[in-house]
Amino acid sequence: METLAALCKRRGFIFQSSEIYGGINGFWDYGPLGAELKRNVRGLWWREMTREREDVVGLDATIIMHPSIWKASGHLDTFADPMVDCKSCKSRWRADQIAEEQGKKIEIEITEDGKKHYKMPAGVKCPKCGSANFTEVRPFNLMFATHVGPIESDDNKAYLRPETAQAIFVQFKNVLDTSRQKVPFGICQIGKAFRNEVTPRNYTFRSREFEQMELQFFIRPDEAVELICGHVAQLTPDTDLSEPHADWGWEIWHKYWVEKRLAWYRSIGLPKASLVEYWQAKDELAHYARACVDIQFAFPFGIQELEGIAARSDYDLTQHHIHSGKSQEVFDDELKAAVAKLDDAARTAFADKVAADWQAAGKSPEAAHTFCAKLFDGRYIPHDIEPSAGVDRLVLALLSDAYCEEKIADDKGKEETRVVMRFNPKVAPIKLAIFPLLKNRPELVAKAREIYLSLRSRWNVFYDESGAIGRRYRRQDEIGTPFGVTVDFQTLEDNTVTWRDRDTMKQERVAISELATRLQNAETGKQ
Amino acid sequence: METLAALCKRRGFIFQSSEIYGGINGFWDYGPLGAELKRNVRGLWWREMTREREDVVGLDATIIMHPSIWKASGHLDTFADPMVDCKSCKSRWRADQIAEEQGKKIEIEITEDGKKHYKMPAGVKCPKCGSANFTEVRPFNLMFATHVGPIESDDNKAYLRPETAQAIFVQFKNVLDTSRQKVPFGICQIGKAFRNEVTPRNYTFRSREFEQMELQFFIRPDEAVELICGHVAQLTPDTDLSEPHADWGWEIWHKYWVEKRLAWYRSIGLPKASLVEYWQAKDELAHYARACVDIQFAFPFGIQELEGIAARSDYDLTQHHIHSGKSQEVFDDELKAAVAKLDDAARTAFADKVAADWQAAGKSPEAAHTFCAKLFDGRYIPHDIEPSAGVDRLVLALLSDAYCEEKIADDKGKEETRVVMRFNPKVAPIKLAIFPLLKNRPELVAKAREIYLSLRSRWNVFYDESGAIGRRYRRQDEIGTPFGVTVDFQTLEDNTVTWRDRDTMKQERVAISELATRLQNAETGKQ
Repeated sequence: METLAALCKRRGFIFQSSEIYGGINGFWDYGPLGAELKRNVRGLWWREMTREREDVVGLDATIIMHPSIWKASGHLDTFADPMVDCKSCKSRWRADQIAEEQGKKIEIEITEDGKKHYKMPAGVKCPKCGSANFTEVRPFNLMFATHVGPIESDDNKAYLRPETAQAIFVQFKNVLDTSRQKVPFGICQIGKAFRNEVTPRNYTFRSREFEQMELQFFIRPDEAVELICGHVAQLTPDTDLSEPHADWGWEIWHKYWVEKRLAWYRSIGLPKASLVEYWQAKDELAHYARACVDIQFAFPFGIQELEGIAARSDYDLTQHHIHSGKSQEVFDDELKAAVAKLDDAARTAFADKVAADWQAAGKSPEAAHTFCAKLFDGRYIPHDIEPSAGVDRLVLALLSDAYCEEKIADDKGKEETRVVMRFNPKVAPIKLAIFPLLKNRPELVAKAREIYLSLRSRWNVFYDESGAIGRRYRRQDEIGTPFGVTVDFQTLEDNTVTWRDRDTMKQERVAISELATRLQNAETGKQ
Repeated sequence: METLAALCKRRGFIFQSSEIYGGINGFWDYGPLGAELKRNVRGLWWREMTREREDVVGLDATIIMHPSIWKASGHLDTFADPMVDCKSCKSRWRADQIAEEQGKKIEIEITEDGKKHYKMPAGVKCPKCGSANFTEVRPFNLMFATHVGPIESDDNKAYLRPETAQAIFVQFKNVLDTSRQKVPFGICQIGKAFRNEVTPRNYTFRSREFEQMELQFFIRPDEAVELICGHVAQLTPDTDLSEPHADWGWEIWHKYWVEKRLAWYRSIGLPKASLVEYWQAKDELAHYARACVDIQFAFPFGIQELEGIAARSDYDLTQHHIHSGKSQEVFDDELKAAVAKLDDAARTAFADKVAADWQAAGKSPEAAHTFCAKLFDGRYIPHDIEPSAGVDRLVLALLSDAYCEEKIADDKGKEETRVVMRFNPKVAPIKLAIFPLLKNRPELVAKAREIYLSLRSRWNVFYDESGAIGRRYRRQDEIGTPFGVTVDFQTLEDNTVTWRDRDTMKQERVAISELATRLQNAETGKQ
């Protein structure tokens, strides 16, 4: 990690925020190359998640929202980490982290309203002074608070969003009403979120200010699918996940998104072997979640989460339905039409079966009957599948994965170390470097400039004329530019250039007219 | 404005933030089309400002930074609006706004440290209750405050950045050291900023959370230009601003950026007649600014600022140089080389001339000598030209400018109103709509789908098969889609489609193979 962090600083990928003032813990800035890398990640995600899909639209909502949203979502009451103070040396810690580092686990008791109560296990010691003289473990809310308007009072307290998800839920109805979508469909958003982590750590991995890329994909409740299709498709190892089907319930939709997201990570260059599909166990799930898969990546500091894909049931929209007093139900004409074909007996039988199923799952049969009455009227609150990814974590994964040192022989046969960032061309900050072989030959410079100018409106390309050509290649290797072309004397004769591949270091002659096609192919993943 | 706001809500450009909870004053969300419009604006700006320039690089810094930055920048002490309370009805107002609305002006006295003292003119009345019984006018700091870390105390108070500029200044040295740029060069950034406006107003124009696109362009002090070039070029009406020259001082650089930015606004479709180039008068300038031009736009609610282009001297970097204790000087080898050619007498003469100039301008001649001694050593703190634009303001300008109602005759010759958003194709959320003439003819649908799928990885295109073709055109007019193509029976014979222009409503036959070229031309502004 230290070598990578040093490279990131040296070449302008990542700087500590406010560095000249001693920095600020848990905040990181992206320098020129980091900013481009991040832009590429955002652009690829947006293209995959909305532009190339007809069933997902975008949203760009504010970071500060009405505070009641965080009451409804549960964040005000339960979005907290266990914090503990050492009474001996007055240092403050995240109780679960210091326990885990000492091979123990803090005990968590969750009350019915979702509130957590913690207990520090015996034997855990203060990492600073070694005493075991702790205060009670108490929850520390991770939301940054501020005040909106000229009066500073509890009435106008507001929060920086700790996730982008809630912005999507509270605009669900507006989007549905204006975008000509109908369930199943999704709303996606990229934006900053803030968590006042007690101990930010692992470079940019756990930061206090970070960026999320989230999709909320709204689906019919399984019961509605059953009424419309007569059945809900079962997930089997043979289920064809390539195209959505009307008879999919939450389980197949969830699996569909897990596969989609894994494929996307592979498509932008993360190797299959570094990606882990971790299915959360029942006791790890949030109380409203039906399933959650973490897509994890083998970081230098351990295997950690890149993205969580949760089946969140109708929890979120229901919470806002209740707390805002504004209906979050949708009307589904296909459902209404399907129900119209059923006689009273069939409806009663259906409602009874649902009530029995709910009862078996520990839920109220009365609630099931109310729910079915709504269904028979064509109405329900949609369920939700949430693939939620971190931009910064993905950037860090791409950086870690790309970093490579190798021994090669220099011009004189002497062994030297080549540092190369093996970014996939899709994410590489600079796609192509263009070099005139010699800086002091105006005809070479003019030709190289001409190529540079013809490509830069579409791709991020870089022109460099200073230093020996080998050194120029090496500078580009270190920032992960996948290709370099050199304009030499042959170019002036036949309009070909030397095309050099970053990874193989092989060179070939390529016509100038072919460069745009090669860049386009690299961008779309074609060979 | 009301008609536009209604369209923006109805078609999913702009929603009130947290609307289902009654909204939150001064915060706005962008719906599916607004999010795409904003993405286009950001992308066009980024391409113009960095990718197509070799002398500008990007940055992506955090919103929360070290609090000392706001002390150094002056925001903690002086970034305030004059606030007043009505003692009779307890309402709170921005003193300058209510005075102005009543044809008066509040008196402002600025002390030497930049602090402002205000006095309400006689005769101004409370807009709510009509009394003139106000408290003293006092400054209200517009920065949103929060606390970083688990302890809430003055020691860990932090602020949401009220501008993106300072993030660039504090990373100036890191960027310079890592990006192979040298002065003159710029750093640009797009990102959110927050101002706790007392009275947000004019739809999205004055919001509490907004997005900025800022460039800080660092240049040599005029004195360094003079040492290197022997003179500083004078700005005249004939000065050629097309390409930067080494002998430009701050005045020409400033004018260069004003022209560049005006040309950009025109290039994305804002008509020249709606843009105003307003030169701030001496008494309007910030105390450190040498000149500032506001690029204004004729909004429905009046002529208001889109972008400010300020010549900020070396104020910002000097402030951070002093407050951080980290040198913000650069070493300029061309300057050093130029100075090496001067003998002692020439240096003394130069320093004396600078001292005299500074003295004439009311600045310390001793400081001039210290400055010259640094210059002779090849060192200085760069000066800065800042073109600072608002994303939301520009989006609002584009929306206002695009909105158009016109009377046309329908199929039966009856007059009807056509609402059309005349976006330039570069900014239009959707570039092309693709329609099969009839929904129930699978061969038409298949062909239309084929065209749609072939274009969508590169452009935001939209497929629509439902409703009469005239109604489908009209729906696209209302969201500003510049072109529509219809697949009809002739298409199946000769692979041509009907290409319909949004503004002229003229239709022509175009080969399918030509569509990508047409979109690319529209994107680059070619006809």
